[in-house]
Amino acid sequence: MRRIRIIVAYDGTNYVGWQVQPNGISVQAHLERALNELTDERIRVEGSGRTDSGVHARAQVAHFDTGVRMAADKFAIAMNMHLPPDIRVLYSEECDPAFHARFSAKQKQYAYTVQVGTHADVFSRLYSLHLHVTPDFDAMQQAASAVIGTHDFAAFKCSDSEMENTVRAITQSEWTKNGNLWVYSVTGNGFLYNMVRILVGTMLEIGSGKRPVSDMQKALESKDRKQAGATAPAHGLCLMRVVYPGFDTQEVLSRE
Amino acid sequence: MRRIRIIVAYDGTNYVGWQVQPNGISVQAHLERALNELTDERIRVEGSGRTDSGVHARAQVAHFDTGVRMAADKFAIAMNMHLPPDIRVLYSEECDPAFHARFSAKQKQYAYTVQVGTHADVFSRLYSLHLHVTPDFDAMQQAASAVIGTHDFAAFKCSDSEMENTVRAITQSEWTKNGNLWVYSVTGNGFLYNMVRILVGTMLEIGSGKRPVSDMQKALESKDRKQAGATAPAHGLCLMRVVYPGFDTQEVLSRE
Repeated sequence: MRRIRIIVAYDGTNYVGWQVQPNGISVQAHLERALNELTDERIRVEGSGRTDSGVHARAQVAHFDTGVRMAADKFAIAMNMHLPPDIRVLYSEECDPAFHARFSAKQKQYAYTVQVGTHADVFSRLYSLHLHVTPDFDAMQQAASAVIGTHDFAAFKCSDSEMENTVRAITQSEWTKNGNLWVYSVTGNGFLYNMVRILVGTMLEIGSGKRPVSDMQKALESKDRKQAGATAPAHGLCLMRVVYPGFDTQEVLSRE
Repeated sequence: MRRIRIIVAYDGTNYVGWQVQPNGISVQAHLERALNELTDERIRVEGSGRTDSGVHARAQVAHFDTGVRMAADKFAIAMNMHLPPDIRVLYSEECDPAFHARFSAKQKQYAYTVQVGTHADVFSRLYSLHLHVTPDFDAMQQAASAVIGTHDFAAFKCSDSEMENTVRAITQSEWTKNGNLWVYSVTGNGFLYNMVRILVGTMLEIGSGKRPVSDMQKALESKDRKQAGATAPAHGLCLMRVVYPGFDTQEVLSRE
């Protein structure tokens, strides 16, 4: 048996999310089915983490074990022949059997895109949240900077989610403008369930003037979900990068 | 009765094209239905020209006549409430009753996008043609420049299309690179049916080394459809701009 790690991109529009679910088809289920067709083995694919229904990925990482004798770098093209066009394996290689897509991850980066303008753009509608009233960019930027550092993010997790350690270290949290697309980029050592979407929802309420900038800090300190804003819609969110010791998706894809 | 002109953007993926067809729903049909719901009048919408099934538009122009008393600039937002999210009216204004979206047009610009790389990008898959083997950019650029000027484009029209004057004046014909997206932009005083897609198909054959650069000139001179290349797929093509005396979609949208 060898362990193979892969980088996967997907348009989440038509999926119930990463994880196998009873109520619809998931990205993980497609990958497992593709491997089953390819290898005749029943293979379990482990991802770096779940993404919610409708969330996209430019660089999700997963691993699986197989006894099939095929050059490790050929799995990408071979799997793509068994996958729908909105899921693509961008890279495959053999890795240390001790590598685990979820437990070995050191950092992740997400991007949340909003499109500002009177009318929603038809070409970015599936990948960005349309705002017909322009929010205050500087206020959102100030709120974003309050997130940087090591904090207890208990106020920024889905209230249904299980008990767990809610402290996370955030090293990047900033908005950039690209024409009428405004992108929030956030990098950290991990994210709670719905954390990025609640951070964005809170910043959008700050940007629209419903709340003062200081509410971000206040919500963090409260550790109370009710003090943070609404959960922003899934379709603006995209997993951009996962970093492991010696394996950084951004570095790997830039040389491909 | 007043004449209103509108700028429309659409993602052509789910449509049979601009024009009302028996075999599926068209963009024109959606606009007419939206106006019917809005005004209770039976309104005919005239576009600057047809786009084929699967072709997109960032700035299609159309006009219609209505007796409804509504501020002309409000039609855009009002129509959007009756349209699916993949069709958006970006602008509306009253115009001279002598204005005709098709017959008054002086220039059009189209863009054809190809995505170069081992794997198709999931996010641009609906809006670009994926090429897993990188073509020769310089050869395609040379072929593109042969198109500039006034030529008889008889070799570059769908062989089924009706008899007509096949001379067109092309003022821009060039490829640009934007990362792994290569975009062919072409501007002219008009285009024959399938002309841009056949130009692109011919250039892709030149770029892949199947034909010499000189074949572009040769095909033009032959006036024979068989001397040109295959028709490139529809989904890479997008209508970018229509220009009329005193009304340029690019200028209007840039100040919106």
